[in-house]
Amino acid sequence: MGLVVYAGSFDPITNGHVDVAERAARLFDRVVVAVARNDGKRPLFTIEERVELVREAIAHIPNAEADTFGGLLADYVRRRGAQAVVRGLRAVSDFEFEFQLALMNRKLNESFETIFMMPNESYTFLSSRLVKEIAALGGEVEPFVPPVVRRALLHKLHGTCHAP
Amino acid sequence: MGLVVYAGSFDPITNGHVDVAERAARLFDRVVVAVARNDGKRPLFTIEERVELVREAIAHIPNAEADTFGGLLADYVRRRGAQAVVRGLRAVSDFEFEFQLALMNRKLNESFETIFMMPNESYTFLSSRLVKEIAALGGEVEPFVPPVVRRALLHKLHGTCHAP
Amino acid sequence: MGLVVYAGSFDPITNGHVDVAERAARLFDRVVVAVARNDGKRPLFTIEERVELVREAIAHIPNAEADTFGGLLADYVRRRGAQAVVRGLRAVSDFEFEFQLALMNRKLNESFETIFMMPNESYTFLSSRLVKEIAALGGEVEPFVPPVVRRALLHKLHGTCHAP
Amino acid sequence: MGLVVYAGSFDPITNGHVDVAERAARLFDRVVVAVARNDGKRPLFTIEERVELVREAIAHIPNAEADTFGGLLADYVRRRGAQAVVRGLRAVSDFEFEFQLALMNRKLNESFETIFMMPNESYTFLSSRLVKEIAALGGEVEPFVPPVVRRALLHKLHGTCHAP
Amino acid sequence: MGLVVYAGSFDPITNGHVDVAERAARLFDRVVVAVARNDGKRPLFTIEERVELVREAIAHIPNAEADTFGGLLADYVRRRGAQAVVRGLRAVSDFEFEFQLALMNRKLNESFETIFMMPNESYTFLSSRLVKEIAALGGEVEPFVPPVVRRALLHKLHGTCHAP
Amino acid sequence: MGLVVYAGSFDPITNGHVDVAERAARLFDRVVVAVARNDGKRPLFTIEERVELVREAIAHIPNAEADTFGGLLADYVRRRGAQAVVRGLRAVSDFEFEFQLALMNRKLNESFETIFMMPNESYTFLSSRLVKEIAALGGEVEPFVPPVVRRALLHKLHGTCHAP
Repeated sequence: MGLVVYAGSFDPITNGHVDVAERAARLFDRVVVAVARNDGKRPLFTIEERVELVREAIAHIPNAEADTFGGLLADYVRRRGAQAVVRGLRAVSDFEFEFQLALMNRKLNESFETIFMMPNESYTFLSSRLVKEIAALGGEVEPFVPPVVRRALLHKLHGTCHAP
Repeated sequence: MGLVVYAGSFDPITNGHVDVAERAARLFDRVVVAVARNDGKRPLFTIEERVELVREAIAHIPNAEADTFGGLLADYVRRRGAQAVVRGLRAVSDFEFEFQLALMNRKLNESFETIFMMPNESYTFLSSRLVKEIAALGGEVEPFVPPVVRRALLHKLHGTCHAP
Repeated sequence: MGLVVYAGSFDPITNGHVDVAERAARLFDRVVVAVARNDGKRPLFTIEERVELVREAIAHIPNAEADTFGGLLADYVRRRGAQAVVRGLRAVSDFEFEFQLALMNRKLNESFETIFMMPNESYTFLSSRLVKEIAALGGEVEPFVPPVVRRALLHKLHGTCHAP
Repeated sequence: MGLVVYAGSFDPITNGHVDVAERAARLFDRVVVAVARNDGKRPLFTIEERVELVREAIAHIPNAEADTFGGLLADYVRRRGAQAVVRGLRAVSDFEFEFQLALMNRKLNESFETIFMMPNESYTFLSSRLVKEIAALGGEVEPFVPPVVRRALLHKLHGTCHAP
Repeated sequence: MGLVVYAGSFDPITNGHVDVAERAARLFDRVVVAVARNDGKRPLFTIEERVELVREAIAHIPNAEADTFGGLLADYVRRRGAQAVVRGLRAVSDFEFEFQLALMNRKLNESFETIFMMPNESYTFLSSRLVKEIAALGGEVEPFVPPVVRRALLHKLHGTCHAP
Repeated sequence: MGLVVYAGSFDPITNGHVDVAERAARLFDRVVVAVARNDGKRPLFTIEERVELVREAIAHIPNAEADTFGGLLADYVRRRGAQAVVRGLRAVSDFEFEFQLALMNRKLNESFETIFMMPNESYTFLSSRLVKEIAALGGEVEPFVPPVVRRALLHKLHGTCHAP
């Protein structure tokens, strides 16, 4: 009981995601960081890689675990017996899409509850997309992602363990 | 006279679209629900399928008809002698793009008038994209689309007439 | 029949309002520009002055008339047998409040329909409030309001018929 | 433990507020609906009246209570040992101000956590301000507020227990 | 030449304002921080107090000065021979009003140019209004305003030089 | 000194872009209109074509030049010794993404300054994307782009020098 699901594509997990997971872990008994398997977008990292990066990035949070799900989030939430889904909100543009999703999910599963949390303001404008773009262009992503993710980005994008 | 065009990609038509068509039909003599042929996005349904689904979905509205158009909406509106184009507004993110389109269309055809209408609030956060996503993941779209569209979605996505 | 109500506080009517009234008058048989009597805000012009300014500003639109109403807009619309209420949309901030109002009005009167129209882009960022502020500070409001409104502003704010 | 504060001016409490309180009460052990004493705006109802209306409106939620606070919310949260503050989010315009408040509160009390919840979509566009405006104009607010609040509004605004 | 005007009500100046002034001073030869005399809102500090607080808060910026103006900003800009007006942008809600103002000012003075700059992200959600509210409720505003402003707030609101 | 970079994908440059470049050229000693080489989106025009179109479109601005860059904008800005990056702001949706980018760039290069400028209101709702769409559908883009761009669009999209 007291379990919440923090769902997303986490391609890859950033410091902003970790921050939200930590905040949720302080409020609820257990937090499942659940990586969506069937995302329309073509991800940079495979589902296995994304889950593994999440696992390492949240290893320091005792009551958090990594998982993955296919199909509807509403079904996954029911299967896990989760009380709520946690979503991070950073900016207005997030907000509208999240609203739409949250209402749709309520239609699909009446007991589905979404709660929104805000990352630390220094992560307010951080996104997986920008991090990938910066890494691809040879920029330093060290302030934005956990060390394990930085290494994975360098390896994936430049075939090396060091910034170019 | 008194003819308006309700234009969109309708891929597929949802209950929110039908609601807007009904509202327009109460205000104007004739409503043409016009499916855009050359949409940049790769549609799930062909233009013929989309028009046919629109036709069945609005069959109960006596002064509404389905049509399709290629080229510029501004030209189609002129050809049909329409007084205005109807667009549904659901949320802020809709609004800005619609504004941009409406102003562009006025530049292309000075007499082009856009009027915005709001669907019933229960459709406020409904979109063709989300409906397709839910259907693809095996979710039940019965509350969101007309029965004929639900069947078409199941057939197209799962090769069956029943929800998986 | 074919009557719509264009409601607002019109304190005072601007060129943007006149533009919306003209657009509505092209689409509908009759447009009533209805000045709200009991607005929470303290208006600069009395209700009589506002109606009179509206009347003169729309005198050139044959199928438009000025009127005033107290109480709920939903009741006024019912009394007049109007098919819809017209509202001008300029910007995102307008939009959300208008949405809220439109949904509330639908709750109060199920047949209440709101249609949104866009003024010419050159009036996009025009508001009665800014016009009053500029006039109060001695600025020239000639590009923003009909001549009769400009004279009324000068008289009301500076006790003169000429710009200071 | 497991206590959250749902803070606001509640002038008066609406069905949307009650809905958020119910949702929070399903997620947390205890919910305190806390009415802010020193709000800049001139409220319609006194602080005592607002608390009393909250108390009656949430009487059916076993793990919820009404309270009032002066001074900074950040201090009240600390005194009560609350884990988080709950805020209802309805629309984009809410969102930005709430964001600003939440970040400010974090600066004032580092452990201050804000979680945002969404009322049922049918309350999405409901606000205390609109309810008061409608009631003042003689409109029926029965769909928007608990019966006890409706009676209080009629009494306060029209000196009667019946709609005019 | 190379002079820009950073205009506002500065009631009072915050660390966010100082940050924008510093950024502008790095880009332009001279920055005038100009306090608007005739603001519709009832300010907490008199115009003399606001200018004096600005003067002390920007004393460390060699090419910046404090000034005050009445009447239209467009006229003041012309009188000073300024190349542009600088405005700080923090959030979406700022943005729309600023847009409206900037377009209006261009109508009043064709050569009027507005440039928008962003304060450091840690000031993104800082506003004079919130600072006053926090100070009035006995909160510590030390992270948000220069020391001289903090003292002035305590003196003005609590008649003391120390936080209550 | 006094050099700013106006960066973008310019696929193709529109009258709105030219307008912003002209405005920046009035404020700063030198403006580099820098076309981003490695944009995620598949551009219609090659990098060489885009730079050439920019060059011709800004040939009348004596203190402006066209350039191209690969890699991070933050690195390019450092290499050129630019004081700031100029971005055009048209609408709210622009704004949030621009904010995110500007903050990210500040993290990557602390001295990176972004200034936002507004094009003339008649270009407010103009975008390269809409221009390409209109041209592809056989619409007249003459009011939206410089003549050289119009010819390039016709040639690229219809293999002709005349509108179809």
